[in-house]
Amino acid sequence: MAQLEAEDITQAVIDRMADCQDPRFKQVMTALVKHAHAFIREVQLSEEEWINAILFLTETGKMCDDKRQEFILLSDTLGISMLVVALNQLKAARAFQQGGGGAEQPTEATVQGPFYWEGAPALPLGADIGENMPGEPAYYQGRVTDTEGRPIANCCLDVWSGDGEGVYDMQMGDDAGMRLRARFHTDEDGRYRFWSIKPSFYPVPDDGPVGGMLRRMGRHPNRPGHIHMKVYAPGHQSVTTHLFVADSPYLDSDAVFGVRNSLIVPFTTHPPGTAPDGRAMDRPYHSATYDFRLVPAR
Amino acid sequence: MAQLEAEDITQAVIDRMADCQDPRFKQVMTALVKHAHAFIREVQLSEEEWINAILFLTETGKMCDDKRQEFILLSDTLGISMLVVALNQLKAARAFQQGGGGAEQPTEATVQGPFYWEGAPALPLGADIGENMPGEPAYYQGRVTDTEGRPIANCCLDVWSGDGEGVYDMQMGDDAGMRLRARFHTDEDGRYRFWSIKPSFYPVPDDGPVGGMLRRMGRHPNRPGHIHMKVYAPGHQSVTTHLFVADSPYLDSDAVFGVRNSLIVPFTTHPPGTAPDGRAMDRPYHSATYDFRLVPAR
Repeated sequence: MAQLEAEDITQAVIDRMADCQDPRFKQVMTALVKHAHAFIREVQLSEEEWINAILFLTETGKMCDDKRQEFILLSDTLGISMLVVALNQLKAARAFQQGGGGAEQPTEATVQGPFYWEGAPALPLGADIGENMPGEPAYYQGRVTDTEGRPIANCCLDVWSGDGEGVYDMQMGDDAGMRLRARFHTDEDGRYRFWSIKPSFYPVPDDGPVGGMLRRMGRHPNRPGHIHMKVYAPGHQSVTTHLFVADSPYLDSDAVFGVRNSLIVPFTTHPPGTAPDGRAMDRPYHSATYDFRLVPAR
Repeated sequence: MAQLEAEDITQAVIDRMADCQDPRFKQVMTALVKHAHAFIREVQLSEEEWINAILFLTETGKMCDDKRQEFILLSDTLGISMLVVALNQLKAARAFQQGGGGAEQPTEATVQGPFYWEGAPALPLGADIGENMPGEPAYYQGRVTDTEGRPIANCCLDVWSGDGEGVYDMQMGDDAGMRLRARFHTDEDGRYRFWSIKPSFYPVPDDGPVGGMLRRMGRHPNRPGHIHMKVYAPGHQSVTTHLFVADSPYLDSDAVFGVRNSLIVPFTTHPPGTAPDGRAMDRPYHSATYDFRLVPAR
Protein backbone atom coordinates (compact mmCIF):
# COMPACT_ATOMS: atom_id res chain seq x y z
CA MET A 1 0.00 0.00 0.00
CA ALA A 2 3.04 2.18 -0.43
CA GLN A 3 2.39 5.66 -1.71
CA LEU A 4 4.25 6.45 -4.89
CA GLU A 5 6.12 9.69 -4.75
CA ALA A 6 7.13 11.13 -8.11
CA GLU A 7 10.66 9.83 -7.68
CA ASP A 8 9.49 6.28 -6.88
CA ILE A 9 7.19 5.73 -9.84
CA THR A 10 9.89 4.65 -12.27
CA GLN A 11 11.23 1.98 -9.91
CA ALA A 12 7.68 0.83 -9.12
CA VAL A 13 6.99 0.19 -12.81
CA ILE A 14 10.25 -1.73 -13.21
CA ASP A 15 9.65 -3.75 -10.02
CA ARG A 16 6.21 -4.74 -11.31
CA MET A 17 7.98 -6.93 -13.91
CA ALA A 18 9.32 -9.28 -11.21
CA ASP A 19 7.33 -12.19 -12.69
CA CYS A 20 8.27 -11.54 -16.33
CA GLN A 21 9.36 -14.82 -17.91
CA ASP A 22 11.12 -13.33 -20.94
CA PRO A 23 14.52 -11.88 -19.94
CA ARG A 24 15.03 -9.97 -23.20
CA PHE A 25 11.54 -8.44 -23.07
CA LYS A 26 12.17 -7.47 -19.44
CA GLN A 27 15.48 -5.86 -20.40
CA VAL A 28 13.93 -3.90 -23.27
CA MET A 29 10.88 -2.75 -21.28
CA THR A 30 13.01 -1.79 -18.26
CA ALA A 31 15.18 0.41 -20.47
CA LEU A 32 12.12 1.82 -22.24
CA VAL A 33 10.46 2.81 -18.94
CA LYS A 34 13.70 4.26 -17.59
CA HIS A 35 14.35 6.39 -20.68
CA ALA A 36 10.71 7.45 -21.18
CA HIS A 37 10.47 8.59 -17.53
CA ALA A 38 13.86 10.34 -17.74
CA PHE A 39 12.63 12.23 -20.81
CA ILE A 40 9.47 13.36 -18.98
CA ARG A 41 11.45 14.48 -15.91
CA GLU A 42 14.03 16.29 -18.01
CA VAL A 43 11.50 18.41 -19.90
CA GLN A 44 8.96 18.51 -17.02
CA LEU A 45 6.25 17.54 -19.50
CA SER A 46 3.02 19.43 -18.85
CA GLU A 47 -0.37 17.71 -18.81
CA GLU A 48 -1.35 19.65 -21.93
CA GLU A 49 1.78 18.43 -23.72
CA TRP A 50 1.02 14.88 -22.56
CA ILE A 51 -2.53 14.89 -23.97
CA ASN A 52 -1.22 16.47 -27.18
CA ALA A 53 1.23 13.58 -27.46
CA ILE A 54 -1.63 11.09 -26.91
CA LEU A 55 -3.68 12.82 -29.63
CA PHE A 56 -0.65 12.89 -31.96
CA LEU A 57 -0.17 9.13 -31.56
CA THR A 58 -3.90 8.55 -32.05
CA GLU A 59 -3.89 10.60 -35.28
CA THR A 60 -0.77 8.77 -36.41
CA GLY A 61 -2.63 5.50 -35.87
CA LYS A 62 -5.61 6.75 -37.87
CA MET A 63 -3.36 7.57 -40.87
CA CYS A 64 -2.17 3.95 -41.08
CA ASP A 65 -3.75 1.61 -43.60
CA ASP A 66 -2.50 -1.09 -45.96
CA LYS A 67 -0.73 1.51 -48.09
CA ARG A 68 0.44 4.06 -45.56
CA GLN A 69 2.53 3.48 -42.46
CA GLU A 70 2.69 6.73 -40.51
CA PHE A 71 4.49 5.10 -37.53
CA ILE A 72 7.35 3.98 -39.82
CA LEU A 73 7.42 7.51 -41.21
CA LEU A 74 7.62 8.86 -37.65
CA SER A 75 10.47 6.47 -36.84
CA ASP A 76 12.20 7.40 -40.12
CA THR A 77 11.96 11.16 -39.63
CA LEU A 78 13.28 10.96 -36.06
CA GLY A 79 16.34 9.03 -37.25
CA ILE A 80 15.22 5.98 -35.30
CA SER A 81 14.93 3.65 -38.30
CA MET A 82 18.37 4.59 -39.63
CA LEU A 83 19.90 4.21 -36.17
CA VAL A 84 18.45 0.70 -35.85
CA VAL A 85 19.67 -0.23 -39.36
CA ALA A 86 23.14 1.20 -38.71
CA LEU A 87 23.56 -0.46 -35.29
CA ASN A 88 22.47 -3.82 -36.66
CA GLN A 89 24.75 -3.65 -39.68
CA LEU A 90 27.61 -2.57 -37.41
CA LYS A 91 26.93 -5.59 -35.20
CA ALA A 92 26.82 -7.95 -38.19
CA ALA A 93 30.01 -6.41 -39.59
CA ARG A 94 31.84 -6.88 -36.30
CA ALA A 95 30.78 -10.51 -36.09
CA PHE A 96 31.87 -11.01 -39.69
CA GLN A 97 35.27 -9.41 -39.09
CA GLN A 98 35.82 -11.48 -35.98
CA GLY A 99 35.10 -14.56 -38.08
CA GLY A 100 37.90 -13.68 -40.53
CA GLY A 101 36.01 -11.12 -42.61
CA GLY A 102 36.05 -10.83 -46.38
CA ALA A 103 38.31 -9.11 -48.86
CA GLU A 104 35.80 -6.33 -49.46
CA GLN A 105 33.29 -4.32 -47.45
CA PRO A 106 29.69 -5.45 -47.81
CA THR A 107 27.08 -3.10 -49.33
CA GLU A 108 25.81 -0.66 -46.73
CA ALA A 109 22.21 -0.88 -45.63
CA THR A 110 19.76 1.99 -45.28
CA VAL A 111 16.13 2.41 -44.29
CA GLN A 112 13.41 0.35 -45.94
CA GLY A 113 10.92 3.23 -45.89
CA PRO A 114 7.14 2.92 -45.95
CA PHE A 115 6.67 1.94 -49.63
CA TYR A 116 7.90 -1.64 -49.78
CA TRP A 117 5.21 -3.91 -51.25
CA GLU A 118 5.85 -7.61 -51.00
CA GLY A 119 5.29 -9.77 -54.07
CA ALA A 120 6.45 -7.52 -56.93
CA PRO A 121 6.42 -9.38 -60.28
CA ALA A 122 9.53 -11.41 -61.19
CA LEU A 123 10.70 -10.01 -64.56
CA PRO A 124 13.47 -11.09 -66.94
CA LEU A 125 16.77 -9.21 -66.88
CA GLY A 126 16.64 -6.16 -69.12
CA ALA A 127 12.91 -5.49 -68.61
CA ASP A 128 11.73 -1.88 -68.33
CA ILE A 129 9.66 -1.11 -65.21
CA GLY A 130 9.55 2.61 -66.00
CA GLU A 131 7.76 2.39 -69.35
CA ASN A 132 4.90 4.87 -69.74
CA MET A 133 5.66 6.38 -66.35
CA PRO A 134 6.68 10.02 -65.88
CA GLY A 135 10.47 10.37 -65.78
CA GLU A 136 13.64 10.09 -67.85
CA PRO A 137 14.70 6.54 -68.73
CA ALA A 138 17.66 5.05 -66.90
CA TYR A 139 19.54 1.82 -67.45
CA TYR A 140 20.77 0.05 -64.28
CA GLN A 141 23.47 -2.59 -64.38
CA GLY A 142 26.01 -4.22 -62.14
CA ARG A 143 27.01 -7.37 -60.41
CA VAL A 144 26.32 -9.08 -57.11
CA THR A 145 29.24 -10.85 -55.47
CA ASP A 146 30.05 -11.99 -51.97
CA THR A 147 32.70 -10.20 -49.91
CA GLU A 148 35.38 -12.50 -51.45
CA GLY A 149 34.42 -11.30 -54.92
CA ARG A 150 32.66 -14.53 -55.94
CA PRO A 151 29.61 -13.90 -58.17
CA ILE A 152 26.21 -14.78 -56.73
CA ALA A 153 23.99 -16.33 -59.41
CA ASN A 154 20.19 -16.16 -59.21
CA CYS A 155 20.42 -13.46 -56.53
CA CYS A 156 17.15 -11.55 -56.19
CA LEU A 157 17.08 -7.75 -56.52
CA ASP A 158 13.67 -6.62 -55.27
CA VAL A 159 13.56 -3.10 -56.72
CA TRP A 160 11.14 -0.21 -56.11
CA SER A 161 11.08 3.56 -56.56
CA GLY A 162 8.82 6.52 -57.17
CA ASP A 163 8.39 7.83 -60.70
CA GLY A 164 10.36 10.68 -62.25
CA GLU A 165 8.25 13.09 -60.19
CA GLY A 166 8.85 11.19 -56.97
CA VAL A 167 5.40 9.56 -56.75
CA TYR A 168 5.13 5.90 -55.68
CA ASP A 169 2.44 3.57 -57.03
CA MET A 170 0.94 3.36 -53.52
CA GLN A 171 0.26 7.10 -53.79
CA MET A 172 -1.32 6.95 -57.27
CA GLY A 173 -4.85 5.95 -56.23
CA ASP A 174 -6.59 2.70 -55.46
CA ASP A 175 -6.48 1.04 -58.86
CA ALA A 176 -2.96 1.97 -59.94
CA GLY A 177 -1.64 -1.43 -58.82
CA MET A 178 2.10 -2.12 -58.73
CA ARG A 179 4.25 0.24 -60.77
CA LEU A 180 8.01 0.74 -60.90
CA ARG A 181 8.57 -2.45 -58.94
CA ALA A 182 9.96 -5.82 -59.88
CA ARG A 183 12.11 -8.69 -58.76
CA PHE A 184 15.12 -9.38 -61.01
CA HIS A 185 17.46 -12.35 -60.67
CA THR A 186 21.16 -12.22 -61.51
CA ASP A 187 22.62 -14.38 -64.29
CA GLU A 188 25.27 -17.09 -63.83
CA ASP A 189 27.97 -14.43 -63.52
CA GLY A 190 26.03 -12.48 -60.84
CA ARG A 191 25.12 -9.72 -63.30
CA TYR A 192 21.86 -7.76 -63.37
CA ARG A 193 20.42 -5.16 -65.74
CA PHE A 194 17.07 -3.45 -66.04
CA TRP A 195 15.45 -0.20 -67.14
CA SER A 196 13.48 2.22 -65.02
CA ILE A 197 13.42 5.98 -64.62
CA LYS A 198 16.01 8.27 -63.02
CA PRO A 199 14.49 8.85 -59.59
CA SER A 200 13.62 12.35 -58.46
CA PHE A 201 13.80 13.87 -55.01
CA TYR A 202 10.37 14.00 -53.38
CA PRO A 203 8.68 14.87 -50.10
CA VAL A 204 7.73 12.11 -47.68
CA PRO A 205 3.93 12.13 -47.23
CA ASP A 206 3.49 15.30 -45.23
CA ASP A 207 -0.29 15.70 -45.09
CA GLY A 208 -0.53 13.75 -41.81
CA PRO A 209 0.65 14.23 -38.22
CA VAL A 210 4.30 13.54 -39.11
CA GLY A 211 4.19 16.31 -41.74
CA GLY A 212 2.85 18.66 -39.07
CA MET A 213 5.68 17.64 -36.76
CA LEU A 214 8.30 18.33 -39.45
CA ARG A 215 6.88 21.80 -40.12
CA ARG A 216 6.91 22.59 -36.43
CA MET A 217 10.52 21.37 -36.23
CA GLY A 218 11.41 23.80 -39.03
CA ARG A 219 12.33 20.93 -41.37
CA HIS A 220 11.66 20.26 -45.04
CA PRO A 221 10.13 16.86 -45.86
CA ASN A 222 12.32 15.97 -48.88
CA ARG A 223 14.38 12.94 -49.69
CA PRO A 224 17.09 12.99 -52.35
CA GLY A 225 16.37 10.90 -55.48
CA HIS A 226 16.94 7.18 -54.91
CA ILE A 227 15.90 3.72 -55.96
CA HIS A 228 15.28 1.02 -53.33
CA MET A 229 16.64 -2.50 -53.46
CA LYS A 230 16.37 -5.56 -51.27
CA VAL A 231 19.16 -7.89 -52.37
CA TYR A 232 18.99 -11.48 -51.21
CA ALA A 233 20.23 -14.93 -52.09
CA PRO A 234 20.27 -18.24 -50.21
CA GLY A 235 23.42 -18.63 -48.13
CA HIS A 236 23.95 -14.87 -47.77
CA GLN A 237 22.85 -12.08 -45.47
CA SER A 238 20.30 -9.97 -47.33
CA VAL A 239 20.66 -6.20 -47.49
CA THR A 240 17.95 -3.53 -47.79
CA THR A 241 19.39 -0.39 -49.29
CA HIS A 242 19.06 2.47 -51.80
CA LEU A 243 21.12 3.83 -54.65
CA PHE A 244 21.16 7.64 -54.36
CA VAL A 245 21.42 9.87 -57.45
CA ALA A 246 24.73 11.76 -57.16
CA ASP A 247 23.45 15.09 -58.51
CA SER A 248 20.18 15.15 -56.55
CA PRO A 249 19.18 17.99 -54.23
CA TYR A 250 18.79 17.14 -50.53
CA LEU A 251 21.68 14.63 -50.40
CA ASP A 252 22.91 16.61 -47.39
CA SER A 253 19.55 16.85 -45.64
CA ASP A 254 17.60 13.63 -46.33
CA ALA A 255 14.36 13.84 -44.29
CA VAL A 256 14.95 10.28 -43.02
CA PHE A 257 18.76 10.45 -42.50
CA GLY A 258 19.31 7.53 -44.91
CA VAL A 259 22.24 8.76 -47.04
CA ARG A 260 25.50 6.78 -46.91
CA ASN A 261 28.44 7.94 -49.05
CA SER A 262 28.98 4.45 -50.45
CA LEU A 263 25.44 4.44 -51.86
CA ILE A 264 25.73 7.65 -53.92
CA VAL A 265 25.94 6.68 -57.58
CA PRO A 266 26.72 8.89 -60.59
CA PHE A 267 24.04 8.78 -63.30
CA THR A 268 25.64 9.29 -66.72
CA THR A 269 23.48 11.04 -69.32
CA HIS A 270 23.59 9.74 -72.92
CA PRO A 271 22.22 11.21 -76.15
CA PRO A 272 19.69 9.18 -78.17
CA GLY A 273 21.29 6.08 -79.73
CA THR A 274 22.03 2.45 -78.95
CA ALA A 275 22.03 1.67 -75.24
CA PRO A 276 24.56 -0.77 -73.69
CA ASP A 277 22.05 -3.63 -73.97
CA GLY A 278 21.43 -2.91 -77.69
CA ARG A 279 18.14 -1.08 -77.15
CA ALA A 280 17.59 1.74 -79.65
CA MET A 281 16.78 4.89 -77.68
CA ASP A 282 15.11 7.77 -79.53
CA ARG A 283 15.53 10.11 -76.59
CA PRO A 284 18.28 10.84 -74.07
CA TYR A 285 18.71 8.34 -71.25
CA HIS A 286 20.83 7.82 -68.14
CA SER A 287 22.89 4.91 -66.96
CA ALA A 288 24.01 3.87 -63.49
CA THR A 289 26.35 1.05 -62.52
CA TYR A 290 26.54 -0.42 -59.04
CA ASP A 291 27.97 -3.64 -57.68
CA PHE A 292 26.49 -5.19 -54.55
CA ARG A 293 28.46 -7.27 -52.08
CA LEU A 294 26.72 -9.65 -49.70
CA VAL A 295 28.10 -11.24 -46.54
CA PRO A 296 27.97 -15.05 -46.55
CA ALA A 297 25.52 -16.31 -43.92
CA ARG A 298 26.98 -18.37 -41.13
CA MET B 1 26.82 15.18 -48.12
CA ALA B 2 28.22 13.98 -44.84
CA GLN B 3 27.86 10.28 -44.21
CA LEU B 4 26.05 9.49 -41.02
CA GLU B 5 27.86 6.98 -38.88
CA ALA B 6 25.77 5.29 -36.20
CA GLU B 7 27.20 7.62 -33.54
CA ASP B 8 26.40 10.75 -35.57
CA ILE B 9 22.74 10.11 -36.31
CA THR B 10 21.41 11.47 -33.02
CA GLN B 11 23.23 14.77 -33.40
CA ALA B 12 22.17 15.01 -37.07
CA VAL B 13 18.49 14.75 -36.08
CA ILE B 14 18.92 17.41 -33.40
CA ASP B 15 20.87 19.72 -35.74
CA ARG B 16 18.08 19.44 -38.31
CA MET B 17 15.91 21.55 -35.97
CA ALA B 18 18.11 24.63 -36.46
CA ASP B 19 15.19 26.53 -38.03
CA CYS B 20 12.60 25.55 -35.40
CA GLN B 21 10.72 28.68 -34.32
CA ASP B 22 9.22 27.21 -31.14
CA PRO B 23 11.87 27.00 -28.37
CA ARG B 24 9.79 24.76 -26.10
CA PHE B 25 8.92 22.35 -28.94
CA LYS B 26 12.61 22.25 -29.89
CA GLN B 27 13.57 21.51 -26.29
CA VAL B 28 11.01 18.70 -25.96
CA MET B 29 11.85 17.12 -29.32
CA THR B 30 15.60 17.36 -28.68
CA ALA B 31 15.18 15.51 -25.39
CA LEU B 32 12.81 12.99 -27.00
CA VAL B 33 15.29 12.17 -29.79
CA LYS B 34 18.20 11.96 -27.33
CA HIS B 35 16.37 9.60 -24.96
CA ALA B 36 14.78 7.49 -27.73
CA HIS B 37 18.17 6.99 -29.39
CA ALA B 38 19.86 6.27 -26.04
CA PHE B 39 17.23 3.59 -25.37
CA ILE B 40 17.87 1.96 -28.76
CA ARG B 41 21.64 2.00 -28.25
CA GLU B 42 21.38 0.65 -24.71
CA VAL B 43 19.33 -2.39 -25.69
CA GLN B 44 20.84 -2.69 -29.19
CA LEU B 45 17.34 -3.00 -30.58
CA SER B 46 17.14 -5.58 -33.37
CA GLU B 47 15.32 -4.91 -36.64
CA GLU B 48 12.78 -7.57 -35.72
CA GLU B 49 12.13 -5.85 -32.38
CA TRP B 50 11.81 -2.51 -34.20
CA ILE B 51 9.17 -3.79 -36.63
CA ASN B 52 7.34 -5.46 -33.74
CA ALA B 53 7.26 -2.09 -31.99
CA ILE B 54 5.87 -0.47 -35.17
CA LEU B 55 3.18 -3.16 -35.40
CA PHE B 56 2.37 -2.78 -31.68
CA LEU B 57 1.85 0.98 -32.11
CA THR B 58 -0.25 0.37 -35.24
CA GLU B 59 -2.47 -2.14 -33.40
CA THR B 60 -2.73 0.29 -30.48
CA GLY B 61 -3.93 2.93 -32.95
CA LYS B 62 -6.50 0.53 -34.39
CA MET B 63 -7.98 -0.09 -30.90
CA CYS B 64 -8.74 3.61 -30.43
CA ASP B 65 -12.22 4.93 -31.07
CA ASP B 66 -14.51 7.43 -29.39
CA LYS B 67 -14.96 5.12 -26.37
CA ARG B 68 -11.57 3.47 -26.08
CA GLN B 69 -8.19 5.15 -25.77
CA GLU B 70 -5.50 2.47 -25.96
CA PHE B 71 -2.65 5.03 -26.04
CA ILE B 72 -3.80 6.50 -22.72
CA LEU B 73 -3.98 2.94 -21.39
CA LEU B 74 -0.41 2.36 -22.60
CA SER B 75 0.73 5.56 -20.92
CA ASP B 76 -1.14 4.61 -17.74
CA THR B 77 0.25 1.07 -17.49
CA LEU B 78 3.84 2.27 -18.02
CA GLY B 79 3.47 4.74 -15.15
CA ILE B 80 3.87 7.66 -17.57
CA SER B 81 0.47 9.25 -16.88
CA MET B 82 0.95 9.10 -13.09
CA LEU B 83 4.48 10.50 -13.43
CA VAL B 84 3.18 13.47 -15.45
CA VAL B 85 0.36 14.06 -12.95
CA ALA B 86 2.72 13.82 -9.96
CA LEU B 87 5.39 16.10 -11.46
CA ASN B 88 2.82 18.73 -12.39
CA GLN B 89 1.16 18.67 -8.99
CA LEU B 90 4.59 18.88 -7.35
CA LYS B 91 5.39 21.91 -9.47
CA ALA B 92 2.08 23.58 -8.63
CA ALA B 93 2.57 22.79 -4.92
CA ARG B 94 6.04 24.33 -4.94
CA ALA B 95 4.76 27.49 -6.61
CA PHE B 96 1.94 27.62 -4.09
CA GLN B 97 4.29 27.20 -1.11
CA GLN B 98 6.63 29.86 -2.46
CA GLY B 99 3.64 32.16 -2.66
CA GLY B 100 2.92 31.69 1.05
CA GLY B 101 1.01 28.41 0.81
CA GLY B 102 -2.17 27.50 2.65
CA ALA B 103 -2.91 26.08 6.04
CA GLU B 104 -3.67 22.65 4.63
CA GLN B 105 -2.35 20.36 1.88
CA PRO B 106 -4.44 20.36 -1.31
CA THR B 107 -6.15 17.16 -2.46
CA GLU B 108 -3.71 14.95 -4.32
CA ALA B 109 -4.27 14.31 -8.02
CA THR B 110 -4.13 10.97 -9.77
CA VAL B 111 -4.60 9.70 -13.32
CA GLN B 112 -7.72 10.57 -15.28
CA GLY B 113 -7.86 7.16 -16.95
CA PRO B 114 -9.53 6.38 -20.28
CA PHE B 115 -13.19 6.53 -19.17
CA TYR B 116 -13.85 10.22 -18.67
CA TRP B 117 -16.84 11.33 -20.75
CA GLU B 118 -17.42 15.06 -20.98
CA GLY B 119 -20.92 16.41 -20.44
CA ALA B 120 -22.30 14.14 -17.71
CA PRO B 121 -25.76 15.31 -16.53
CA ALA B 122 -25.89 17.93 -13.78
CA LEU B 123 -27.94 16.36 -10.95
CA PRO B 124 -29.20 17.77 -7.64
CA LEU B 125 -27.29 16.96 -4.46
CA GLY B 126 -28.43 13.64 -3.01
CA ALA B 127 -29.30 12.04 -6.37
CA ASP B 128 -28.53 8.34 -6.88
CA ILE B 129 -26.43 7.57 -9.98
CA GLY B 130 -26.10 3.89 -9.04
CA GLU B 131 -29.81 3.02 -9.09
CA ASN B 132 -30.62 -0.21 -10.96
CA MET B 133 -26.92 -0.82 -11.60
CA PRO B 134 -25.06 -3.89 -10.27
CA GLY B 135 -23.36 -3.11 -6.97
CA GLU B 136 -23.96 -2.32 -3.30
CA PRO B 137 -25.32 1.17 -2.60
CA ALA B 138 -22.97 3.74 -1.12
CA TYR B 139 -23.58 7.23 0.20
CA TYR B 140 -20.83 9.79 -0.51
CA GLN B 141 -20.56 13.03 1.41
CA GLY B 142 -18.07 15.70 2.32
CA ARG B 143 -17.04 19.24 1.80
CA VAL B 144 -14.94 21.23 -0.60
CA THR B 145 -12.80 24.00 0.87
CA ASP B 146 -9.74 25.90 -0.24
CA THR B 147 -6.38 25.35 1.45
CA GLU B 148 -7.32 27.99 4.05
CA GLY B 149 -10.39 25.99 5.04
CA ARG B 150 -12.88 28.35 3.39
CA PRO B 151 -15.86 26.52 1.89
CA ILE B 152 -16.24 26.63 -1.91
CA ALA B 153 -19.89 27.01 -2.89
CA ASN B 154 -21.21 25.80 -6.24
CA CYS B 155 -18.02 23.77 -6.79
CA CYS B 156 -18.50 21.11 -9.45
CA LEU B 157 -17.75 17.45 -8.69
CA ASP B 158 -17.71 15.64 -12.03
CA VAL B 159 -18.03 12.03 -10.84
CA TRP B 160 -17.66 8.73 -12.70
CA SER B 161 -17.01 5.07 -11.86
CA GLY B 162 -17.61 1.54 -13.02
CA ASP B 163 -20.48 -0.43 -11.55
CA GLY B 164 -20.24 -2.85 -8.62
CA GLU B 165 -18.63 -5.36 -10.96
CA GLY B 166 -16.10 -2.84 -12.27
CA VAL B 167 -17.76 -2.26 -15.66
CA TYR B 168 -17.97 1.31 -17.04
CA ASP B 169 -20.88 2.51 -19.19
CA MET B 170 -18.50 2.88 -22.13
CA GLN B 171 -17.94 -0.88 -21.94
CA MET B 172 -21.66 -1.78 -21.72
CA GLY B 173 -22.43 -1.67 -25.45
CA ASP B 174 -23.35 1.06 -27.88
CA ASP B 175 -26.77 2.03 -26.54
CA ALA B 176 -26.03 2.00 -22.81
CA GLY B 177 -25.46 5.76 -22.80
CA MET B 178 -24.11 7.49 -19.71
CA ARG B 179 -24.37 5.53 -16.46
CA LEU B 180 -22.83 6.09 -13.04
CA ARG B 181 -21.76 9.61 -14.05
CA ALA B 182 -22.99 13.02 -13.00
CA ARG B 183 -21.95 16.52 -12.13
CA PHE B 184 -22.89 17.65 -8.62
CA HIS B 185 -22.50 21.18 -7.27
CA THR B 186 -21.70 21.96 -3.64
CA ASP B 187 -24.15 23.93 -1.49
CA GLU B 188 -23.46 27.31 0.15
CA ASP B 189 -21.34 25.63 2.82
CA GLY B 190 -19.23 23.71 0.25
CA ARG B 191 -20.98 20.43 1.07
CA TYR B 192 -21.80 17.64 -1.36
CA ARG B 193 -23.70 14.36 -1.07
CA PHE B 194 -24.83 11.73 -3.55
CA TRP B 195 -25.53 8.04 -3.89
CA SER B 196 -23.79 5.55 -6.14
CA ILE B 197 -22.42 2.03 -5.70
CA LYS B 198 -19.33 0.90 -3.77
CA PRO B 199 -16.80 0.54 -6.58
CA SER B 200 -15.17 -2.82 -7.21
CA PHE B 201 -11.64 -3.62 -8.37
CA TYR B 202 -11.57 -4.44 -12.09
CA PRO B 203 -9.14 -5.17 -14.89
CA VAL B 204 -8.19 -2.43 -17.32
CA PRO B 205 -9.31 -3.45 -20.83
CA ASP B 206 -6.84 -6.23 -21.57
CA ASP B 207 -8.11 -7.65 -24.87
CA GLY B 208 -5.91 -5.29 -26.91
CA PRO B 209 -2.19 -4.77 -27.46
CA VAL B 210 -1.68 -3.25 -23.99
CA GLY B 211 -3.23 -6.35 -22.40
CA GLY B 212 -0.78 -8.48 -24.37
CA MET B 213 2.08 -6.31 -23.14
CA LEU B 214 0.97 -6.68 -19.50
CA ARG B 215 0.81 -10.48 -19.81
CA ARG B 216 4.27 -10.57 -21.34
CA MET B 217 5.54 -8.35 -18.51
CA GLY B 218 4.15 -10.88 -16.00
CA ARG B 219 1.65 -8.33 -14.64
CA HIS B 220 -2.00 -8.51 -13.67
CA PRO B 221 -4.31 -5.88 -15.21
CA ASN B 222 -6.29 -4.97 -12.09
CA ARG B 223 -7.03 -1.65 -10.48
CA PRO B 224 -8.27 -1.38 -6.86
CA GLY B 225 -11.87 -0.16 -6.44
CA HIS B 226 -12.18 3.61 -6.89
CA ILE B 227 -14.50 6.40 -7.93
CA HIS B 228 -13.23 9.22 -10.15
CA MET B 229 -13.79 12.93 -9.55
CA LYS B 230 -12.84 16.09 -11.34
CA VAL B 231 -13.33 18.89 -8.82
CA TYR B 232 -13.39 22.43 -10.16
CA ALA B 233 -14.62 25.88 -9.28
CA PRO B 234 -13.93 29.36 -10.69
CA GLY B 235 -10.93 30.97 -8.98
CA HIS B 236 -9.36 27.64 -8.00
CA GLN B 237 -7.01 25.08 -9.52
CA SER B 238 -9.05 22.04 -10.51
CA VAL B 239 -7.99 18.56 -9.45
CA THR B 240 -8.60 15.23 -11.18
CA THR B 241 -8.44 12.42 -8.68
CA HIS B 242 -9.95 9.18 -7.31
CA LEU B 243 -11.21 7.99 -3.96
CA PHE B 244 -9.88 4.46 -3.39
CA VAL B 245 -11.86 1.90 -1.34
CA ALA B 246 -9.75 1.12 1.74
CA ASP B 247 -10.50 -2.62 1.84
CA SER B 248 -10.07 -3.27 -1.90
CA PRO B 249 -7.65 -5.83 -3.30
CA TYR B 250 -4.81 -4.49 -5.49
CA LEU B 251 -4.25 -1.29 -3.50
CA ASP B 252 -0.56 -2.28 -3.45
CA SER B 253 -0.33 -3.16 -7.15
CA ASP B 254 -2.61 -0.81 -9.09
CA ALA B 255 -2.08 -1.57 -12.81
CA VAL B 256 -1.75 2.17 -13.51
CA PHE B 257 0.27 3.19 -10.41
CA GLY B 258 -2.42 5.68 -9.36
CA VAL B 259 -2.76 4.99 -5.58
CA ARG B 260 -1.89 7.82 -3.17
CA ASN B 261 -2.24 7.18 0.57
CA SER B 262 -4.23 10.37 1.07
CA LEU B 263 -6.89 9.13 -1.38
CA ILE B 264 -7.65 5.84 0.39
CA VAL B 265 -11.05 6.16 2.09
CA PRO B 266 -12.74 3.78 4.55
CA PHE B 267 -16.20 2.66 3.46
CA THR B 268 -18.41 2.03 6.49
CA THR B 269 -21.05 -0.68 6.12
CA HIS B 270 -24.50 -0.07 7.65
CA PRO B 271 -27.47 -2.39 8.21
CA PRO B 272 -30.82 -1.54 6.58
CA GLY B 273 -32.39 1.57 8.11
CA THR B 274 -32.42 5.33 7.78
CA ALA B 275 -29.41 6.73 5.92
CA PRO B 276 -27.75 10.03 6.97
CA ASP B 277 -29.80 11.96 4.39
CA GLY B 278 -33.06 10.45 5.66
CA ARG B 279 -33.40 7.88 2.88
CA ALA B 280 -35.02 4.64 4.05
CA MET B 281 -32.74 1.78 3.05
CA ASP B 282 -34.23 -1.73 2.95
CA ARG B 283 -30.84 -3.33 2.38
CA PRO B 284 -27.33 -2.81 3.75
CA TYR B 285 -25.40 0.17 2.39
CA HIS B 286 -22.00 1.81 2.70
CA SER B 287 -20.95 5.35 3.42
CA ALA B 288 -17.79 7.26 2.64
CA THR B 289 -16.78 10.74 3.72
CA TYR B 290 -14.10 12.79 2.01
CA ASP B 291 -13.23 16.47 2.07
CA PHE B 292 -11.54 18.06 -0.93
CA ARG B 293 -9.17 21.00 -0.73
CA LEU B 294 -8.46 23.16 -3.77
CA VAL B 295 -5.60 25.59 -4.31
CA PRO B 296 -6.71 29.15 -5.09
CA ALA B 297 -5.77 30.09 -8.68
CA ARG B 298 -3.29 32.94 -9.08
